[in-house]
Amino acid sequence: MSKVLENLEWRYATKKMDPTKQVSQEKIDTILEAIRLTATSSGLQPYEVFVVTNKELREEIVPHAWGQTQITDGSHLLVFAAWDNYTEDRINTMFDLVNEKRGFTNDGWEAYRQKLLAAYTPRDAKENYEHAARQAYIGLGTALIAAAEEGVDSTPMEGFDPEKVDEILGLKEKGLRSVILLPLGYRAEEGDWLAKLKKVRRAKEHFITEVK
Amino acid sequence: MSKVLENLEWRYATKKMDPTKQVSQEKIDTILEAIRLTATSSGLQPYEVFVVTNKELREEIVPHAWGQTQITDGSHLLVFAAWDNYTEDRINTMFDLVNEKRGFTNDGWEAYRQKLLAAYTPRDAKENYEHAARQAYIGLGTALIAAAEEGVDSTPMEGFDPEKVDEILGLKEKGLRSVILLPLGYRAEEGDWLAKLKKVRRAKEHFITEVK
Repeated sequence: MSKVLENLEWRYATKKMDPTKQVSQEKIDTILEAIRLTATSSGLQPYEVFVVTNKELREEIVPHAWGQTQITDGSHLLVFAAWDNYTEDRINTMFDLVNEKRGFTNDGWEAYRQKLLAAYTPRDAKENYEHAARQAYIGLGTALIAAAEEGVDSTPMEGFDPEKVDEILGLKEKGLRSVILLPLGYRAEEGDWLAKLKKVRRAKEHFITEVK
Repeated sequence: MSKVLENLEWRYATKKMDPTKQVSQEKIDTILEAIRLTATSSGLQPYEVFVVTNKELREEIVPHAWGQTQITDGSHLLVFAAWDNYTEDRINTMFDLVNEKRGFTNDGWEAYRQKLLAAYTPRDAKENYEHAARQAYIGLGTALIAAAEEGVDSTPMEGFDPEKVDEILGLKEKGLRSVILLPLGYRAEEGDWLAKLKKVRRAKEHFITEVK
């Protein structure tokens, strides 16, 4: 069986994590590297990932995240934080990095830079942020598989007050906005109402349409 | 080495696909199943996937997608199409399906249904669509890994005119809006300017912040 399918069957949005268990640094590094490596629109990587192990800060976040205790029971909290806007500087930094790493520039690539600058920088900050936020979800889809492959449980969360989390982590000053929380840890032996329930997805015929 | 990291290192946004090569149905099924299995917010799966093999329709899409020929040179075109809005009916259908598959209802779950109905249905269609579209990106992140594991090349595309694609595939009448195109196929031996170039990502220290 496909390893990816196995990982996806195994994972679920863990509702209760075991506070005595710690995810190893090696596993965390693998999950983060997967997020760093995956695709983003034009390769801009318009988000950052914060790895919060500080217990006080995680405790501060819980009441602004519907009291979800995986945030403190897990050993690590990933916070995906999207760029609040596309700026000339941010776009140029990424294009310059590509030129530097590849050791050359070329006309097609430089024309594409100008195209993106012209398209993104005059646009409304809100529209640019929405576009950046979507890219973070590619990272989330990646992280869920990478974590499962490492036997690490995770709980994707949108249910939190982003402004409060931005405040607690000082994201606004960095031009970032929190989009997704992802606690990482290990499922508790008891107390997880979802752990033993069947994973439910729409049947193939209600999700996929072949256009032949 | 982690299989996920291997897959992510291997993949790239293929710029030229070999039109003589066909991805097998088995591989396509695995990729689609991975998308179907991955997470979405509250498990609503607020998007659908269209698998376009019809050559004429793919040819019709190309001029509305910056002339990107992977759309026709690949053997399959996946179109991720998000719900244009969250409706009572769509939300209830998913909650009912969960009850049916698990064989019971429970108060917590029913309270959560009411909470979502109250939060989503009065909201602006545009805001709901944006939220649904984000979920499709989790599917995209998943598809990229699943395809790579099968040795299948893919090219995520946002550069297309969604209204035209909606028109060509009749998505509007279905209450759907195209969000991402993902041609699947095999890289051409020649003519892909990106194939041999270094994958460039921001250094860890510019992408990840530890908050200890």
